[in-house]
Amino acid sequence: MPHDPQAPDAVLARIDAMLPAALDRLMDLLRIPSISTDPAFKADCDRAADWLVADLQSLGFDAAKRPTPGHPMVVAHGDGPADASGPHLLFYGHYDVQPVDPLSLWDRDPFDPALENTPKGQVIRARGASDDKGQLMTFLEALRAWKAETGQLPCKLTIFLEGEEESGSPSLIPFLQDNAAELQADIALICDTGLFQDTAPAIVTMLRGLLGEEITLHAANKDLHSGMFGGLAANPIRALTRILANLHDDQGRITLPGFYDGVSELPDAIRAQWQNLAFDHAAFLGDVGLSVPAGELDRTPLEMLWSRPTAEVNGIWGGYTGDGFKTVLPAEAHAKVSFRLVGTQDPHAIRAAFRAWVQAQLPADCSATFTEHGASPAGLMQITHPAFEAARAALGDEWGRAAAYVGCGGSIPIAGYFKTYLGMDAMLLGFARDDDQIHSPNEKYDVECFHKGIRSWARLLARLA
Amino acid sequence: MPHDPQAPDAVLARIDAMLPAALDRLMDLLRIPSISTDPAFKADCDRAADWLVADLQSLGFDAAKRPTPGHPMVVAHGDGPADASGPHLLFYGHYDVQPVDPLSLWDRDPFDPALENTPKGQVIRARGASDDKGQLMTFLEALRAWKAETGQLPCKLTIFLEGEEESGSPSLIPFLQDNAAELQADIALICDTGLFQDTAPAIVTMLRGLLGEEITLHAANKDLHSGMFGGLAANPIRALTRILANLHDDQGRITLPGFYDGVSELPDAIRAQWQNLAFDHAAFLGDVGLSVPAGELDRTPLEMLWSRPTAEVNGIWGGYTGDGFKTVLPAEAHAKVSFRLVGTQDPHAIRAAFRAWVQAQLPADCSATFTEHGASPAGLMQITHPAFEAARAALGDEWGRAAAYVGCGGSIPIAGYFKTYLGMDAMLLGFARDDDQIHSPNEKYDVECFHKGIRSWARLLARLA
Repeated sequence: MPHDPQAPDAVLARIDAMLPAALDRLMDLLRIPSISTDPAFKADCDRAADWLVADLQSLGFDAAKRPTPGHPMVVAHGDGPADASGPHLLFYGHYDVQPVDPLSLWDRDPFDPALENTPKGQVIRARGASDDKGQLMTFLEALRAWKAETGQLPCKLTIFLEGEEESGSPSLIPFLQDNAAELQADIALICDTGLFQDTAPAIVTMLRGLLGEEITLHAANKDLHSGMFGGLAANPIRALTRILANLHDDQGRITLPGFYDGVSELPDAIRAQWQNLAFDHAAFLGDVGLSVPAGELDRTPLEMLWSRPTAEVNGIWGGYTGDGFKTVLPAEAHAKVSFRLVGTQDPHAIRAAFRAWVQAQLPADCSATFTEHGASPAGLMQITHPAFEAARAALGDEWGRAAAYVGCGGSIPIAGYFKTYLGMDAMLLGFARDDDQIHSPNEKYDVECFHKGIRSWARLLARLA
Repeated sequence: MPHDPQAPDAVLARIDAMLPAALDRLMDLLRIPSISTDPAFKADCDRAADWLVADLQSLGFDAAKRPTPGHPMVVAHGDGPADASGPHLLFYGHYDVQPVDPLSLWDRDPFDPALENTPKGQVIRARGASDDKGQLMTFLEALRAWKAETGQLPCKLTIFLEGEEESGSPSLIPFLQDNAAELQADIALICDTGLFQDTAPAIVTMLRGLLGEEITLHAANKDLHSGMFGGLAANPIRALTRILANLHDDQGRITLPGFYDGVSELPDAIRAQWQNLAFDHAAFLGDVGLSVPAGELDRTPLEMLWSRPTAEVNGIWGGYTGDGFKTVLPAEAHAKVSFRLVGTQDPHAIRAAFRAWVQAQLPADCSATFTEHGASPAGLMQITHPAFEAARAALGDEWGRAAAYVGCGGSIPIAGYFKTYLGMDAMLLGFARDDDQIHSPNEKYDVECFHKGIRSWARLLARLA
């Protein structure tokens, strides 16, 4: 066991030597079409869980497939050295994968993985290569090398692998509740995220929350003819556009009263790290045909994506929307509106504020009804846990550039669930690249990411154990 | 022939006596399912035209079925007394009818007409009873009674009956162009409108025009995920709502530059007539679940409907509009916008102004494309022709209350076509009621309207001839 946390050289050398075998193992796992959302693949999901149980048992874990009403969980417990002073770590990944449609857009069978040489380097091509089988195997391979080199695991470990992440995790919360004591650890390591712009190691410490609302504005009791009624009768589309247009002021700020309660300024240390990432927003936007950051005028592009809340209309409809033209004044108009939340913004308070704000702007003869579509607060990781600085240092050592605490504009609910149901902080880090085409045809994982990912975990375990 | 225009008593008495036979004739015509939009009824349209040709020939007209690429026109010419000093009148109606779907909502076969007693009086129930077979027969029955009583027609007459009015009149303009000389008359009488609020006789002298535009706003080159891009990427729905919200100011006025060019104040005489109509806007709106006039704050309800232009969003769509929620930032957002036009507003100038106005408001990264959906100017009848005051007086005599020059919020293109292609003014008057359910199941025409309609034409002809 290496005692200099900066240089677990023997373990790293073993990882390098074992890479071909590690790739073979990953490809074995990738051959199992564990598509969780399609009942036709239920037996395959089971088989993937069995494969992982066997692999964990080979590493000395007390591992078992645990039934749920859906696909099974894999839970494994392992002990480190008797004199270990390091933390008890829980590792999370998921063995299920997305469907593969449209199959015609794949250049090969998605479940016949292969190594391919590309202009950007060698890749493992298969459904799940990046999301999340390749990523979860980085951790298991690091443990394998560690065990091979030292004869034991580096510290007390719990492995928790889910089989329903790509289908909404219906069994997850009940399982966490039913097994809360067993799943306790000092911190959870979640490997389902990526590098920042392909090369910079990153630890996600801010996850935006999400609040969804659907509005229906009602006016007349039926659709009206705009010749017979136009000019005299209220048009709910007009009312809806006026209300939604007021959601932002001319500076791009959201106008709901109290909306920014709980939104903090970025700490200077984090701001400096983000500055150092040199985010190329022109390229990021340019890839999708855009050029100008559309958020608050006085915020940086990364703040707009990670640390500032948003209000967006994700859908709008009303009246006649088919071919040609129909001069209708519709009885109703509809919109789906979402808010990305940060800091300690309270989704329930914002929902109430939004509804009151809409009601206050209704013109005569218009009424509003609302449907909720979920409410989750932002996730803010407690980076005071020593694992965070250890991980930053380990990642920096491996990737040759400083690791940053970054945000994530979307939601990764598992981190919040660990906090809510197990009282456990979580750290999200991973090695995916933006061009991995997860959820799309021709998914891949770079061999470099797999290899350096395994090495990153070895360095991190050395620093923590 | 009655020489006192106020009292064509003998003709009126004959109309009263002939009413049962007139109803039988109308029911004969109503039994022909002349649905113009459905090719399955092509032979029936032909049969309806034949029926009318025969009926006109029985009145002494030189009548013929005239082929078009679609359904035939019926054109008939007749002369009045050799010493007649009255005008040459052209009468227009249409013999085709709307489809009957959904048939299940009809209380009887739509083409098996019957007289029914209702709480509001006796009605003729059938498809086309009001729109427009019953209405066109009011004129023919008035001529029949006149001829029976006096031995000749009251004046020089051209009858022009169309068979494609309910299917967009594709053959109309070419037919008018090809037969312009033959169809010349001093004024056209168009019987396809109604009483005002069921009891007040009315002559439509203002028809609003219509301009239709479809906007598509484009932003990113594909739909984006609002977690990954939200806050940084432009949302075309947001841009669209802001632009459309600006179409009206807080007073309800339309903000397009130059939009009100050509919009005149109502002449005092017309304003007085409208005042006299005592329009019950509360009841009119109340019937459809509304209560408050939604147009310009300083205008009366009838001005809003008849003499003021409008801008309405008739359809809007973009993003995810299905069940549930999808956090998409769409690549595009769409709206269908129409303008009802009055006075001498120029639809082409307004289309150009609208497009420029939208372009001027586009935020960064948004572009707009437009599709036209028709442009017709408003129609303003020249009420200086003596037929107008004659018609007002005749209608007032028959209905026991003053007739008014009214507007019509919708479009009746035929009046404009007569002006454009024949240089001929037109007068629109008719006897339909608001509850006739034209275009809907259980269409009806009140026997009172049919009877008093015939009498109204007799009085009008007496005043003109």
